Amino acid sequence: MKTIIKLIIFVSATIFLINIAYAQFSKPEEAIRYRKSVMFLILQHFKPMGAVVQGKTTYEKGTFSENADHVKYLAALPLEASLAPGSDKGDTALKAAALDNTDKFKKEAGSFEAATASLARTSRGGDIDAIKAQFGMVAKSCKSCHQQFRTK
Amino acid sequence: MKTIIKLIIFVSATIFLINIAYAQFSKPEEAIRYRKSVMFLILQHFKPMGAVVQGKTTYEKGTFSENADHVKYLAALPLEASLAPGSDKGDTALKAAALDNTDKFKKEAGSFEAATASLARTSRGGDIDAIKAQFGMVAKSCKSCHQQFRTK
Repeated sequence: MKTIIKLIIFVSATIFLINIAYAQFSKPEEAIRYRKSVMFLILQHFKPMGAVVQGKTTYEKGTFSENADHVKYLAALPLEASLAPGSDKGDTALKAAALDNTDKFKKEAGSFEAATASLARTSRGGDIDAIKAQFGMVAKSCKSCHQQFRTK
Repeated sequence: MKTIIKLIIFVSATIFLINIAYAQFSKPEEAIRYRKSVMFLILQHFKPMGAVVQGKTTYEKGTFSENADHVKYLAALPLEASLAPGSDKGDTALKAAALDNTDKFKKEAGSFEAATASLARTSRGGDIDAIKAQFGMVAKSCKSCHQQFRTK
């Protein structure tokens, strides 16, 4: 009897925690739009850094760091939205694999966050070669996650 | 002659600075999508705080502060995108008034940023009455700007 009660408490607590974790999104479409919004913003701040790294625009330390800081901040936002149940269906490029293998997905997300934090830190130093190398690490992290968890 | 040269230098410098300021957006549609993305994210973090303030969900200090921090950070992002030339046309609710009266618009944006920063600070204290009051100030700031610069 005690075991059953313990089990009921455990299951209730788990459901409660899941509800807390995804309380922000009332439906999968909201989670999809949330993460798409974040990814668009990341791209908008990533592109000008890419142009600098490719030598298409002049390196300006303040602007570069500002973009790197935004990408760092934004990088942490989409994880919860990416794991929202049912959000692998509909107008999204997220593969079901993300929800089927959350540990692997979280690891990729963690690598991305770490790489963007390093880029923000490196950008403060103003050493363009170090910056280029770290920018490459961020790009590599994008690619790795997209290859596994993005359909297009 | 000197006056003409000075004028040419002044105009060139102004064009240069404008190009720097809006370099992030290659076209108005990009600026529109950027600010819409930010506003959607702000709304997603604003709503759960509103639910707490209205007594619909339980106040949880950590979660509330997290949402307040995100709104504070995001609040500073859309200004540049809102002032991008030509971005009052197309799929947007921004009134032309924002681009016609940038000083007034910037003042509203500044008030919003200040109100969200205060909310983030107040939320650390955990005093729910103070939090409710400051949340009201943020909502008031949203309304004031929307009434003047948003069509719907």
